[in-house]
Amino acid sequence: MVEPLAVGIVGAGYWGRNLIRNFSTSPDWQLAWVCDKDQKLAASRVEAMPAVRVTGEFSEVLSDETVDAVAIATPVGTHYELAMAALTAGKHVLVEKPLVATLAEGERLVAFAAEHDLRLMTDHTFCYTAAVRYIANMVDSGELGTFHYLDSVRINLGLVQPDVDVFWDLAPHDLSILDFILPDDIEAVSVSATGADPLGIGKATLGYLSIGLSTGAIANVHVNWMSPVKVRHTIVAGSKKMIVWDDNNPSQRVSVYDVGITTQNDAESRLRRLVGYRTGDMVAPALADTEALSLMVGEFAAAITEHRDPLTSGADGLAVLRILDAARRSLAQGGGPVAVGATT
Amino acid sequence: MVEPLAVGIVGAGYWGRNLIRNFSTSPDWQLAWVCDKDQKLAASRVEAMPAVRVTGEFSEVLSDETVDAVAIATPVGTHYELAMAALTAGKHVLVEKPLVATLAEGERLVAFAAEHDLRLMTDHTFCYTAAVRYIANMVDSGELGTFHYLDSVRINLGLVQPDVDVFWDLAPHDLSILDFILPDDIEAVSVSATGADPLGIGKATLGYLSIGLSTGAIANVHVNWMSPVKVRHTIVAGSKKMIVWDDNNPSQRVSVYDVGITTQNDAESRLRRLVGYRTGDMVAPALADTEALSLMVGEFAAAITEHRDPLTSGADGLAVLRILDAARRSLAQGGGPVAVGATT
Amino acid sequence: MVEPLAVGIVGAGYWGRNLIRNFSTSPDWQLAWVCDKDQKLAASRVEAMPAVRVTGEFSEVLSDETVDAVAIATPVGTHYELAMAALTAGKHVLVEKPLVATLAEGERLVAFAAEHDLRLMTDHTFCYTAAVRYIANMVDSGELGTFHYLDSVRINLGLVQPDVDVFWDLAPHDLSILDFILPDDIEAVSVSATGADPLGIGKATLGYLSIGLSTGAIANVHVNWMSPVKVRHTIVAGSKKMIVWDDNNPSQRVSVYDVGITTQNDAESRLRRLVGYRTGDMVAPALADTEALSLMVGEFAAAITEHRDPLTSGADGLAVLRILDAARRSLAQGGGPVAVGATT
Amino acid sequence: MVEPLAVGIVGAGYWGRNLIRNFSTSPDWQLAWVCDKDQKLAASRVEAMPAVRVTGEFSEVLSDETVDAVAIATPVGTHYELAMAALTAGKHVLVEKPLVATLAEGERLVAFAAEHDLRLMTDHTFCYTAAVRYIANMVDSGELGTFHYLDSVRINLGLVQPDVDVFWDLAPHDLSILDFILPDDIEAVSVSATGADPLGIGKATLGYLSIGLSTGAIANVHVNWMSPVKVRHTIVAGSKKMIVWDDNNPSQRVSVYDVGITTQNDAESRLRRLVGYRTGDMVAPALADTEALSLMVGEFAAAITEHRDPLTSGADGLAVLRILDAARRSLAQGGGPVAVGATT
Repeated sequence: MVEPLAVGIVGAGYWGRNLIRNFSTSPDWQLAWVCDKDQKLAASRVEAMPAVRVTGEFSEVLSDETVDAVAIATPVGTHYELAMAALTAGKHVLVEKPLVATLAEGERLVAFAAEHDLRLMTDHTFCYTAAVRYIANMVDSGELGTFHYLDSVRINLGLVQPDVDVFWDLAPHDLSILDFILPDDIEAVSVSATGADPLGIGKATLGYLSIGLSTGAIANVHVNWMSPVKVRHTIVAGSKKMIVWDDNNPSQRVSVYDVGITTQNDAESRLRRLVGYRTGDMVAPALADTEALSLMVGEFAAAITEHRDPLTSGADGLAVLRILDAARRSLAQGGGPVAVGATT
Repeated sequence: MVEPLAVGIVGAGYWGRNLIRNFSTSPDWQLAWVCDKDQKLAASRVEAMPAVRVTGEFSEVLSDETVDAVAIATPVGTHYELAMAALTAGKHVLVEKPLVATLAEGERLVAFAAEHDLRLMTDHTFCYTAAVRYIANMVDSGELGTFHYLDSVRINLGLVQPDVDVFWDLAPHDLSILDFILPDDIEAVSVSATGADPLGIGKATLGYLSIGLSTGAIANVHVNWMSPVKVRHTIVAGSKKMIVWDDNNPSQRVSVYDVGITTQNDAESRLRRLVGYRTGDMVAPALADTEALSLMVGEFAAAITEHRDPLTSGADGLAVLRILDAARRSLAQGGGPVAVGATT
Repeated sequence: MVEPLAVGIVGAGYWGRNLIRNFSTSPDWQLAWVCDKDQKLAASRVEAMPAVRVTGEFSEVLSDETVDAVAIATPVGTHYELAMAALTAGKHVLVEKPLVATLAEGERLVAFAAEHDLRLMTDHTFCYTAAVRYIANMVDSGELGTFHYLDSVRINLGLVQPDVDVFWDLAPHDLSILDFILPDDIEAVSVSATGADPLGIGKATLGYLSIGLSTGAIANVHVNWMSPVKVRHTIVAGSKKMIVWDDNNPSQRVSVYDVGITTQNDAESRLRRLVGYRTGDMVAPALADTEALSLMVGEFAAAITEHRDPLTSGADGLAVLRILDAARRSLAQGGGPVAVGATT
Repeated sequence: MVEPLAVGIVGAGYWGRNLIRNFSTSPDWQLAWVCDKDQKLAASRVEAMPAVRVTGEFSEVLSDETVDAVAIATPVGTHYELAMAALTAGKHVLVEKPLVATLAEGERLVAFAAEHDLRLMTDHTFCYTAAVRYIANMVDSGELGTFHYLDSVRINLGLVQPDVDVFWDLAPHDLSILDFILPDDIEAVSVSATGADPLGIGKATLGYLSIGLSTGAIANVHVNWMSPVKVRHTIVAGSKKMIVWDDNNPSQRVSVYDVGITTQNDAESRLRRLVGYRTGDMVAPALADTEALSLMVGEFAAAITEHRDPLTSGADGLAVLRILDAARRSLAQGGGPVAVGATT
């Protein structure tokens, strides 16, 4: 077995706690530091781990030469500064989603990491769930057929974040999943975003993203902090199979519907075919219950050790930011389609 | 009991059959004619009713002076001509949704009916279901509080209509419901529409409407002919209550969630409130099982007898057309927000 | 095409109406008579069918020599007399479940039909649904493996029958299904029945049957007129597959769970295996939507034409009666196990 | 704040770990000892709690005079000896369900604790859930009306216990809930049990209990280790309300159905009433999310401090044992009704 890598975690809040649990129990990692302005909070998280040092000063972590990597779980507004400082100190960096608060920052960060040959990883946790890996595999292997559309609903009550709107809080999940499963030759080209702020708190608390893809396919996301019911329901539809992922149904998270095979290909017979559409058998695959975060932490170590990009790299974080940024511009101009692209 | 009114039905297809069943069993109506180009089909629908005359010529129905009203259940492209002919012949008219194929036609039709003091009714069947009437009543009575948003998902597989796209086929249901329940002082002001045609049949087979309302509230509709699962799920959310209408769950179609009462009103405490949002008790009211279409047919008779607008008038059909028309324009320009308004 | 057979239906109530609809639209049958004491009711059912004769006297039907068969949909207390009269008149007979009111009557009826070489069929409708045929086929083909147990829950509110208790009203469905799917070499040997009459109306309104099978396997049935929720949930479990049939879930009625293949066979390793039990993939087969009653009516004609026992014969009706009779005796003695057998 | 009580936990397995977590974080308790034959396991559970002593010898715990109470989470076959030893040493005792392995042992234990004025508590965890407390309160307050029946289904796959059968493993949950919610003037008088052992491992792996109550009401329990689906569904029905508790549905665990109010009371009108039964509105109360085990641990402390019986006392454990014992006798004699009573 190889020597475990040493990691310092900054941010001991809700997500930081999850990271602490997973890094501290991973055979690939030795948790060296937990850093939080609220040192008491940080200390309480690691009471049972006398070997872990606690600090309120991030610089202390960075100046520890034995530290290989830093994991950042602080409010998004602080990500850029902390991540850049860590990269500058020669550390590999894992950042909670969304990567940073602006597209420009994201591009600088990714470029800097590349230049200095350091791993920059985005914590797109859902990409490590058995459900998303299963779906991605169906797309990759061709079993899904031509990609038709993705529709994702992620709505709930009361999980408001004070520093971001509902798009920046919830949509990174759906967008990272979209980025993860979409074939390499399909790109998001435009975004139309609409939202509402019925409480008058100065930012959208529910909203919709409609993303045009380069093939004419479409991806739509509904995020909502003000829904009376919790829904986590995603459809990924292709020409051969259609997948429903219902994350609220632990006994049947993924259902794969057969939509039959068709041979003729003119528009008229495609229309007739649709009229006659029937789903065939449905298969709900048995999926492993491994915690996604533990796989993510293992992938971070593997990427460092194997000197390669992690499965959810900084570039993937950037892909998500590009759409969020386009969504922000679309919202600002009242909802029109906005090109997904470089900084503007 | 008053003398029943005499009605002629034109169109003996799927919906025509439903109309025949409901008009023929209504105490308010005497079914006098069934008209269809396919006279055999028309005849087969009324085998058991020797008193009902069958014809392939609509003019025969119109020239029958005993006929009070005409019900139109033909493809939408023929609605305008048939309805105008019937109004011209002095008949009251009921039209299957959507009212007509263009906004301009709709406006002429509504104006003509008004001028000639004839009832023009749109068959917005869902507005006569116990669920929609319950929801409308909660909005009207103030129990819902301030209207926050409507989100409606109406997706299924394989029910493609050859003559219209998915918006014109399915969205009239959601838009007529929106029109029906929305308080009079709230108006639809803009529509952003996005859609996709993954089969390449020349029209959208799935799509999204995002409707901006005059208060800043929002209504969103997802319609889809290519979903592996059937979903009929509508959320109507207000400041006091949030309603979930799940039309696929016959044992609990309507669920009303209490969202608590709040007193402070600055943005900061509204934000804190949202963070602390919890639903209280939920109530699923017992709803009657009366067939909506039978109530609709009764309302048509009542409107004629009482010389008043029906609950779902031509003007309501027009309100739906205005949004569909804006959606068409939005789609044509790639998805931007388009003003809901008069013909353009 | 062969000449259709002529049938007379006696009983024009709820079930009679269903029979009228299915016999009158079947290519195999010509509906000749409808008979009911309430002649007006009978007449109203066939208004649209001038060729069908209506009578209040069953003897009129029996004395019509063109009538091949009789279908009985009257209260169970009258089944024996009517069926016996029909068989005596040389007619083939279909009887609504349960076959008759006592086991002794059932045995006489089956014997009499056999002696006179006439078809006696029990209307076990559920055996003609796609779901039950699918399950029976999995048992027959060996795919299910060794039969382990059946558990069936059929509960609802307010569908009380005045003439029978809840066992005789609802359990025939489950028992006929059990009889239908059980391999020929497995028999019901004992029944324990418990029930309750919380309203004090003199008969059980909810109850449980626990049926011991000859292999040591078990079948359990919960029937209930006083449940706030409607449940139609049956598990059929074998050593290789376990099937869940949820008749309230039209989009996924049948779910087949893989329980893995095991090779060792001593008790210890079977125990360890159970501890480690995991279901594999689940398959929900696409099932046809054909109305069961229409298949049943066709099978009745085929059995007559092909001069063979129908799929759900009088003997099958008798098998159900044997269990109901044992249940009645078990209830009478407070719930103990009672042997399923001949009349006592 | 009062001084916390000192507790020693014996058994560091699955349930012991839950007890360790709850005792160690309770303000009412100081966790002093964890005892397990497997000392390494015991030590691993409390790595982070240097103040907790670990031992393989239960006598060490008992001889510690500072220890007020002992919590037992070992296999049921060892409960009696351990609990008796602890009581003899003057400790208060909490025992995981089922209390002990035989009714005779249970009676001796309860008598001994009473004689020596020590608290003996059974860990009937479900009685501390918000759902069960809500139901119990509806029964107590009279809101439910007359108790009609309880039906409980607790089925799953693969959670086999090596030392007990499915009745002793799962049914204590349902029986303790029954004991908890049943009004004091209603008693279990008889039990009919049937079960099956399709794997041939020498004990029932699925089975049914039908419990006759002193009022003629009934309680039925289905427990099953071999179900492909997980069901935790309990109906508690009364003359005024019917409650469905679906523990698998976290967003709507408890649903309360109104069954209307009736005034006439002869059997005939009760029958007619049932025919016309309709549920009225349904209410799903908002329930707190407090962990049941933490409330249970608090109740143990309160019972000691306040010198009173705990809510789920040894006597309640005995009530459950009486039914389990009757079930064992019923099973042994093939399923007949057996009187619930004292040891035989």
